[in-house]
Amino acid sequence: MKSDTGTRQLTAKGRATRDRIVAAAAGLMYERGVAATTTEDIQRAAEVKSPSQLYHYFGDKRTLVQAVIQYQIEQVLAFQRPLLSRLDSFESLQAWRDAVVEVQRARNCEGGCPLGSLAAELSDVDPGAREQLMAGYGQWEDAVRDGLASMRERGELDAAADPGRLALALLTALQGGLLMTQNRRDTLALETVLDAMIDRIRIHAVTQRAPAS
Amino acid sequence: MKSDTGTRQLTAKGRATRDRIVAAAAGLMYERGVAATTTEDIQRAAEVKSPSQLYHYFGDKRTLVQAVIQYQIEQVLAFQRPLLSRLDSFESLQAWRDAVVEVQRARNCEGGCPLGSLAAELSDVDPGAREQLMAGYGQWEDAVRDGLASMRERGELDAAADPGRLALALLTALQGGLLMTQNRRDTLALETVLDAMIDRIRIHAVTQRAPAS
Repeated sequence: MKSDTGTRQLTAKGRATRDRIVAAAAGLMYERGVAATTTEDIQRAAEVKSPSQLYHYFGDKRTLVQAVIQYQIEQVLAFQRPLLSRLDSFESLQAWRDAVVEVQRARNCEGGCPLGSLAAELSDVDPGAREQLMAGYGQWEDAVRDGLASMRERGELDAAADPGRLALALLTALQGGLLMTQNRRDTLALETVLDAMIDRIRIHAVTQRAPAS
Repeated sequence: MKSDTGTRQLTAKGRATRDRIVAAAAGLMYERGVAATTTEDIQRAAEVKSPSQLYHYFGDKRTLVQAVIQYQIEQVLAFQRPLLSRLDSFESLQAWRDAVVEVQRARNCEGGCPLGSLAAELSDVDPGAREQLMAGYGQWEDAVRDGLASMRERGELDAAADPGRLALALLTALQGGLLMTQNRRDTLALETVLDAMIDRIRIHAVTQRAPAS
């Protein structure tokens, strides 16, 4: 794999062009998939004059895909972090669930998870992409685990609660919910699986009883 | 969309050729994705002499994809049905969970769900494929819902249990688990989310208490 020139040796103008290419490629790959996005499509969408400019910044498509994955991880975490950083009560879990559902509605249930779409397409065919996405998921998971660990430390969850397992289950349920939202064009599966997971976490609630339904 | 010639007007030999093309296309699309699979790849894998034979049976790629989706729905249900048809106790839920995990291990955690991979790639770009996959998921979901409804009728689940919602949540969790298995190359996320969902269903268990962890 050729290495990304990154942003190190670039002028401000060069950085802006590079960022424009990554954002355009990310948008197209999110809409159509990586394989269905051609260099020409990206060149056109990024308003870059020649294919040689793309090669100048990224060498090959795989290196550009690497930059797109990094971009999408940052985008997802930028949206999720303000919510995840205070994900340490059942109220905030509920607010996070509502925000995730709202985002899907706002985009007409299209697109699915930017990381999940890349993971589904690339995990089997690009080992580097697979690991990069796994690391991105790991950052998300750690943030949720920390919030649940705080709840346990404060005595809101009982000692049997395993923040690591609950965070992994919640992330995994979210991935399924986003995929099913994309397939169903409605948020019912997403809502249902997130509610089920929050109910699962609630088994450990110290001050609240598990709900009857 | 041109219509599939189907199997109606075909001779036995024609049917065999058609089936071979569909199976070869399904295998390649599962490994690489739909967009990354060319007509030439399929022709070679199916050991078909000329591209015109592919056109004879399927007209265009979209029609072939339609046949591939049908094939994968049948494959998934053929594997799942014997397990799902008796999914009416916590023991059978556990056995189903173990069987699903075992299948992933046996294939080195590669590939993900044959329906999920197609859904992730096609839901936004091929409305017909999206609806066909949704109907496939629906068949799976109905089988699980019926099993949970039997448990409720026999009094093993309380009256507050909603078999439809629980089945949808379980299917959605499974989809997330299969995607994460593909990305992580291990079954931990799959096991964790299925265990979480079975624990969630267990909240309604009449003869058993919800587990402490």
